[in-house]
Amino acid sequence: MMEQNPDRPPAGVALDLVVRYAETDAMGVVHHSTYIVWFEAGRVAWMDAAGMPYRTVADGGHHLAVTKLQAEYRSPARFGDTVRVVTRATSLRSRQVCFAYDIYSADDGILLATGNSEHISVDTHGRPAKIPSQVLAHLIAGMERLARDDTT
Amino acid sequence: MMEQNPDRPPAGVALDLVVRYAETDAMGVVHHSTYIVWFEAGRVAWMDAAGMPYRTVADGGHHLAVTKLQAEYRSPARFGDTVRVVTRATSLRSRQVCFAYDIYSADDGILLATGNSEHISVDTHGRPAKIPSQVLAHLIAGMERLARDDTT
Amino acid sequence: MMEQNPDRPPAGVALDLVVRYAETDAMGVVHHSTYIVWFEAGRVAWMDAAGMPYRTVADGGHHLAVTKLQAEYRSPARFGDTVRVVTRATSLRSRQVCFAYDIYSADDGILLATGNSEHISVDTHGRPAKIPSQVLAHLIAGMERLARDDTT
Amino acid sequence: MMEQNPDRPPAGVALDLVVRYAETDAMGVVHHSTYIVWFEAGRVAWMDAAGMPYRTVADGGHHLAVTKLQAEYRSPARFGDTVRVVTRATSLRSRQVCFAYDIYSADDGILLATGNSEHISVDTHGRPAKIPSQVLAHLIAGMERLARDDTT
Repeated sequence: MMEQNPDRPPAGVALDLVVRYAETDAMGVVHHSTYIVWFEAGRVAWMDAAGMPYRTVADGGHHLAVTKLQAEYRSPARFGDTVRVVTRATSLRSRQVCFAYDIYSADDGILLATGNSEHISVDTHGRPAKIPSQVLAHLIAGMERLARDDTT
Repeated sequence: MMEQNPDRPPAGVALDLVVRYAETDAMGVVHHSTYIVWFEAGRVAWMDAAGMPYRTVADGGHHLAVTKLQAEYRSPARFGDTVRVVTRATSLRSRQVCFAYDIYSADDGILLATGNSEHISVDTHGRPAKIPSQVLAHLIAGMERLARDDTT
Repeated sequence: MMEQNPDRPPAGVALDLVVRYAETDAMGVVHHSTYIVWFEAGRVAWMDAAGMPYRTVADGGHHLAVTKLQAEYRSPARFGDTVRVVTRATSLRSRQVCFAYDIYSADDGILLATGNSEHISVDTHGRPAKIPSQVLAHLIAGMERLARDDTT
Repeated sequence: MMEQNPDRPPAGVALDLVVRYAETDAMGVVHHSTYIVWFEAGRVAWMDAAGMPYRTVADGGHHLAVTKLQAEYRSPARFGDTVRVVTRATSLRSRQVCFAYDIYSADDGILLATGNSEHISVDTHGRPAKIPSQVLAHLIAGMERLARDDTT
C-alpha cells in the first residue's frame, strides 16, 4: 500500500495533446466530456512512465475500472491549443488506485481543469480482483522513482 | 432562486437511450466518458420537459457552461442495453444551475451510475452572464410543475 | 446469398435520433464523424427489425467488421434536431454484408447525408469466418419480410 | 488551382498518434469512426506543415466543410498502438480541396486504413464561399514545398 505523503505531493507525469476539431462543440470550445478522455490518456502516460503500461496490466487479465470521477472546469480549451495533462497517482493499493489530474494550456500555463478518479481492480469478467502483487510493486516503485526524479 | 426542499426530492425527468456500439470500449462495457454525454442528454431532456429547451436558451445568447462534474459508477452498461437517465434540477439561480442524475438499466432497474453537475451561465463569448429572468422564471415554473406531476 | 433487386430498392428501417450537444463541433453543426456512429446505430436498428439483433450475432462469436465506408454530406444537422436514419441491407452473403443509409431531418424531410458500408464476418479473434447459415437465413428472411412490409 | 501530378504522388505529412482506450470498442480494437477523427487530425497537421494552419483559415471566417468521405479498413489498431497518419492534399481549388490518407502502424509499418475526403469552402454561416486567394496561394506553395522536401 502506498499513500501520498501530504508534505510532498506525488510527482506528476506530463502529457501534451493537441486539441482536435472533433473535440470541440457548438459553444466553440472543447466539450467537457473530452477532458475525461484526456484524464484517461494522462493516467495511461503515468503508468507508462512508472514502467507498468496499462496494456501490460490488461494483457495480464486485470482492468482498472473507474468507480468515481470528479472534474472542475476553470477555463476553456480551443481547437488547435496544446494542452498539458499532468497526472499523479495519489493512492496505490491492491484493490483501489487513485489518480489526480491538472490540465494546463501548454502555451501560456493557465490551469484549465482539475480532476481525480478512483479505480478498482477487476478481472476480465468485471469481477473485483486484487491487483497482482508484482504489478502493484512495480507501480509503487515507479511512483517512488517518479517522485525522486521530480525533486532532483 | 430555487433550492430543492430536502424533505421532498425534486422530480426527475426520464430519458431512455439505447447503448451504441461506439459507446463501448475494449473492456466490453460502456466507456466511462459516455455517461458524461448521457448526463448532458438527460439535462437537455429535463429542460425540454420544463418547457425551456436548451436550444432556446442558446439561441437567446446564453450557455450553461459546466464548471463541476461528479460521477459514480456502480454497474456496467453493455451494448444494446437500454439505459434510463433520470435527471433532476437541484438548484436554479440566475448565475448557477445544478443537476443530479441517476442512470438505471431500463431492463431490470439496476442503478448503474449517479452523478451531478454545476453550471454557470455565460454569454456567447464565454463571459459570466446572468440567466435572463424570464428564462429563469420559466425553468423554476417548470421545476415546480414537474414536482407536482411527480407527486400526483 | 441475397442481392438487392435493382427494380425494387430494399426496404428501409427508420431510426429517429435526437442530436446531442456533444455531437456538435465549433462550426456550430454536427461533426461529420457523428454520422458514421449514426450509420452504425441505423444498421443495429435494421438487424433488430430483421429479427436478428447484432447482440445475438456477437454473443454467438461473430462480428461484422467494417471494411469500407462512404459518406456524402449534403446539409448540416444541428443540436436539438431530430434526424431519421433510414437503413437498407443491400447485400447479404455468408462472408460479406452491405448496408446503405439515408439520413433525413425528421422535422422537414430534408436529406442531410447518405452513405454505405461493407462488412466482413469475423470471429472473436478478428479472423474471417463465415456468418453461420442460420444467422444468414434469419437476416435474409428478415430482409424479405421488411420488403413485403414496405410495399403493402 | 493545383491538381496532383499522376507521375509523382503529392508529398505526405506524417502525424503519430497513440491509440486511446476511449477509442476502442467491445470488439477489442479501435472503433471505425475513430479513423475519421484521425483523418481530420492528419489534415490539420498537413495544413500546419503547409504553413496555413486550419485555425488561421477558421479565424479568417472560412471553414472546409466535409462533403464526401471514403475509408477502407485493412487491419485493426489496438489500444496503446502508435499509428502514423500520412496525409496528402490531392487537389486544391478555390471552392474545393481534397485530401488522401494512409494510416500505418508506426510500430511495424503495416497499412491499417486508407481514406480520402472532399471539402468545400464555406463561410461562418455555412454558405459556399471561395477560399481567399491568399490562403489558397499559401496552401499551394506549401504543397509544392512539401513535395520538394519529400524528394530531396
